[in-house]
Amino acid sequence: MAFMKALWLEDGRLRFREDVPRPAPGPGEALVRVRLAGICGTDLEMVKGYYPFTGVLGHEFVGEVVAAPDAPDWVGRRVVGEINVVCHACDMCQRGLERHCRNRTVLGILGRHGAFAEYLTLPLENLHPVPDNVPDTVAVFTEPLAAALEILDQVHLQPTSRVLVVGVGRLGQLIVRVLALIGAHIDVVARREKQRVLLRRWRVGFWAAEEVPEGAYDVVVEATGNPEGFALARRALRPRGTLVLKSTYAGHLQVDFSRVVVDEQTLVGSRCGPFDAALRLWSRGLIDPRDLIEATYPLAQGEEAFAHAAQPGVFKVLLTP
Amino acid sequence: MAFMKALWLEDGRLRFREDVPRPAPGPGEALVRVRLAGICGTDLEMVKGYYPFTGVLGHEFVGEVVAAPDAPDWVGRRVVGEINVVCHACDMCQRGLERHCRNRTVLGILGRHGAFAEYLTLPLENLHPVPDNVPDTVAVFTEPLAAALEILDQVHLQPTSRVLVVGVGRLGQLIVRVLALIGAHIDVVARREKQRVLLRRWRVGFWAAEEVPEGAYDVVVEATGNPEGFALARRALRPRGTLVLKSTYAGHLQVDFSRVVVDEQTLVGSRCGPFDAALRLWSRGLIDPRDLIEATYPLAQGEEAFAHAAQPGVFKVLLTP
Repeated sequence: MAFMKALWLEDGRLRFREDVPRPAPGPGEALVRVRLAGICGTDLEMVKGYYPFTGVLGHEFVGEVVAAPDAPDWVGRRVVGEINVVCHACDMCQRGLERHCRNRTVLGILGRHGAFAEYLTLPLENLHPVPDNVPDTVAVFTEPLAAALEILDQVHLQPTSRVLVVGVGRLGQLIVRVLALIGAHIDVVARREKQRVLLRRWRVGFWAAEEVPEGAYDVVVEATGNPEGFALARRALRPRGTLVLKSTYAGHLQVDFSRVVVDEQTLVGSRCGPFDAALRLWSRGLIDPRDLIEATYPLAQGEEAFAHAAQPGVFKVLLTP
Repeated sequence: MAFMKALWLEDGRLRFREDVPRPAPGPGEALVRVRLAGICGTDLEMVKGYYPFTGVLGHEFVGEVVAAPDAPDWVGRRVVGEINVVCHACDMCQRGLERHCRNRTVLGILGRHGAFAEYLTLPLENLHPVPDNVPDTVAVFTEPLAAALEILDQVHLQPTSRVLVVGVGRLGQLIVRVLALIGAHIDVVARREKQRVLLRRWRVGFWAAEEVPEGAYDVVVEATGNPEGFALARRALRPRGTLVLKSTYAGHLQVDFSRVVVDEQTLVGSRCGPFDAALRLWSRGLIDPRDLIEATYPLAQGEEAFAHAAQPGVFKVLLTP
């Protein structure tokens, strides 16, 4: 049996191991050699015990197909991969809601080993070839860019919309850049100077949290994941406006739903998004995420990498086998 | 009385004149010195008699405010201007549909002298300051970019939408670039190699007219203004899809509305759009229209400029006083 290096999560402890069995691709699957992987907020939450999981962590990656028994022409292709592996049989899949499959496994999150390793397996249907003009350091952001794009798929954001984004850390930075594409007026609640600097070329306005005007925005995106962020977001939204919840909320949230009802506001939960569209945006050169990269660590220094990523105000830390 | 140079349309004949009275700004108006103006398809149609109009032609411009009796702080500002001058009193204006004002005049099109001149007047409320990082050669495209953006204001185009654009001349080129911003898959029907070359970096697919698949697109934008283009656009649209009519149709159009009804298709007429959002896109550096510029002529050579602009396959010809 062949082994590989990987970052292994067990009982809330992340360890570098060199004795993890190299996975073998099942029917319809590909074996992917990971070239670069990214640490996201969900990974940090999982190490804190947000979700019970034992195995290889990680779900943001770019890699190269090294084996695909059913489709040898895929071998050698540079790919990114959708993280939900679905059954195509349950009622959700039958209704075209595959990303909500009742029997899904999720790469590095639920019932499936992830990307902080030398190799991973995914079904071929989850893989998307990366266009030649998109470097690895950009492609590794495809999963979060798709998650940001999901907002445009769910909500009719208009060039004339007034939008507020609350929280511009890792994901919030990409959300602002995506929403800026259609010409909307965008204001941002940013806690840190560093967050503001990276957004300057996108010509957005900045508020301190206590200055945000009430009821002033058509669409508000909440990307802090904390109750204060949510309360601020709801207050800033106009009657009949749309509040997009774009974060992982640990624990329960106290919400004043009477205000939501009186103001006829819409709340939209938003999760994974379209990879195809994200790759088109990279390929068209419309967004460059590389200013978010703070450091790249080898897997063997994975614990250091996580400690770095967990520091306040740090954007993206990458891992390479 | 002061006079100025201008291109004057009368009885379907365009003439360069040096004896046109320089306009004086009325209450709430500004006098704008034109820096650069653009010839659009509508101008060419008007010379052909599409619309009865006598006076100074032209509605795409960038200029500088040289007098504003009610607001002297505007003097010296570089501006672009919305072309519909409205009454704020009629039922349309009262319902917030100012661009559809029943008593409107339209710069260089309806009851108001236009931009192919040394000076023009417009109400201050029509003017938008141009951000410093946007050069004149870009700003002069603001009116057509806004018209292209109007599609995103009217239709919920999604990153996962499949879109076809029929006709990629002057306006179609900007439409493709705007629709590409949200990551949608875009195919284009382009008659000319030159039209395809300019769109290559936007990663769109190309069809010859006779190859376009039937019922394959969620949204189709018709930008040819001719009956063949419309028929092709309708056939390419899927049931329940949306057909955007983004052109000036001279004369009547024969439409098979039974197919529209059976297929439950939506037809949307689309005209002028949001200047604010267009200026944000320029300022964010997301679209550069300068590859569309074919030539720049002085007003004195206006007739040559129009002959050039009317040649098949020519994109944008500019005029400078």
